[in-house]
Amino acid sequence: MAPKYKLTYFAIKALGEPIRFLLSYGKIEFEDARLEFEQWPSMKASMPFGQVPVLEIDGKKTWQSLAICRYLGKLVGLAGANDWEDLQIDMAIETVTDLRLKIANFWYETDEAQKAKKKEPLLKEILPFLLPRLDNLVKENGGYLANSKLSWADLYFIGILDYLNFMVEFDLTKDYSNLAALKKKVLEIPAIKEWVDKRPNTEW
Amino acid sequence: MAPKYKLTYFAIKALGEPIRFLLSYGKIEFEDARLEFEQWPSMKASMPFGQVPVLEIDGKKTWQSLAICRYLGKLVGLAGANDWEDLQIDMAIETVTDLRLKIANFWYETDEAQKAKKKEPLLKEILPFLLPRLDNLVKENGGYLANSKLSWADLYFIGILDYLNFMVEFDLTKDYSNLAALKKKVLEIPAIKEWVDKRPNTEW
Repeated sequence: MAPKYKLTYFAIKALGEPIRFLLSYGKIEFEDARLEFEQWPSMKASMPFGQVPVLEIDGKKTWQSLAICRYLGKLVGLAGANDWEDLQIDMAIETVTDLRLKIANFWYETDEAQKAKKKEPLLKEILPFLLPRLDNLVKENGGYLANSKLSWADLYFIGILDYLNFMVEFDLTKDYSNLAALKKKVLEIPAIKEWVDKRPNTEW
Repeated sequence: MAPKYKLTYFAIKALGEPIRFLLSYGKIEFEDARLEFEQWPSMKASMPFGQVPVLEIDGKKTWQSLAICRYLGKLVGLAGANDWEDLQIDMAIETVTDLRLKIANFWYETDEAQKAKKKEPLLKEILPFLLPRLDNLVKENGGYLANSKLSWADLYFIGILDYLNFMVEFDLTKDYSNLAALKKKVLEIPAIKEWVDKRPNTEW
């Protein structure tokens, strides 16, 4: 019997969406349990390390979005063909994670004065440093993040892109033709398109 | 012929040390190229995404410490026996990474007033939430971070522990018997002990 998958996350895309992308890509049925933020305080203690996303696989709780995505990547045939290829995928994944953390460092700042102070270096220094290099990585890898072929790194990146774009208030790929082409390519994968067309509409 | 390994990092432990631990564990010879901070501005542009550690493997540059450690973990026989075990290792690794990022968010804050403001929630809320859970994870896993056996997650965690301890100014394992026992166990592995005894003495 096929394992049962239940994803618990907030009713947003953010860190849950790459998991939903990978499950959808693999045509794996899953329960998409979406929490309202008001429900969270009463649920936090029941989650490993007090966090979501949590993916239950036959009732066993797994946590940490990157760990889950790497596992699902293997399951749906989007891992590397060998350890060296997996290393290239992981290098891309951690680079995308750095990008996410730099943006999150600005966006989740609760002190408004500090947040304003963080915006300029993010927009004027950090993104103009990282994005051309990420664009070039895709160029060097034949239109993908690694190994000149589709991998779970591509689904991960495009899966969190709406969240990143929401935080910076523009499309990060707009001036980068290789990143823009990668986005288009991933969103045109039939199983991804089908998921995107049917998913609940949320802002981020 | 065995591949040639060259690690480029600062003359500190921090994110380079888990890589040095794993290479040492596998009895893999490597060039341990240590940069002084003054050298960095002139070297940054030559590093992928402007970062170190970089591990050159037969001249091919690889970057991102977690990606490198996962690759070396497989190479030295410290990965999981199957995808499920690798998932448990990755869950532990990302949890340790969350711990690192929470501490780094305080320590790398350059605004002194902000830094002071971040210290209390870190010491009074964040660490008292995370550390007992991490301790319990080790307890549930028979004295290791995953799968009741030694994995690269254990070497990674103990490899960055001095760096984390340096930032918080105390030993994170001091009140947590399972974490303290894991530290002792990893540092008693003969190849690790040999490395620790011969490595350059640095504060962090």
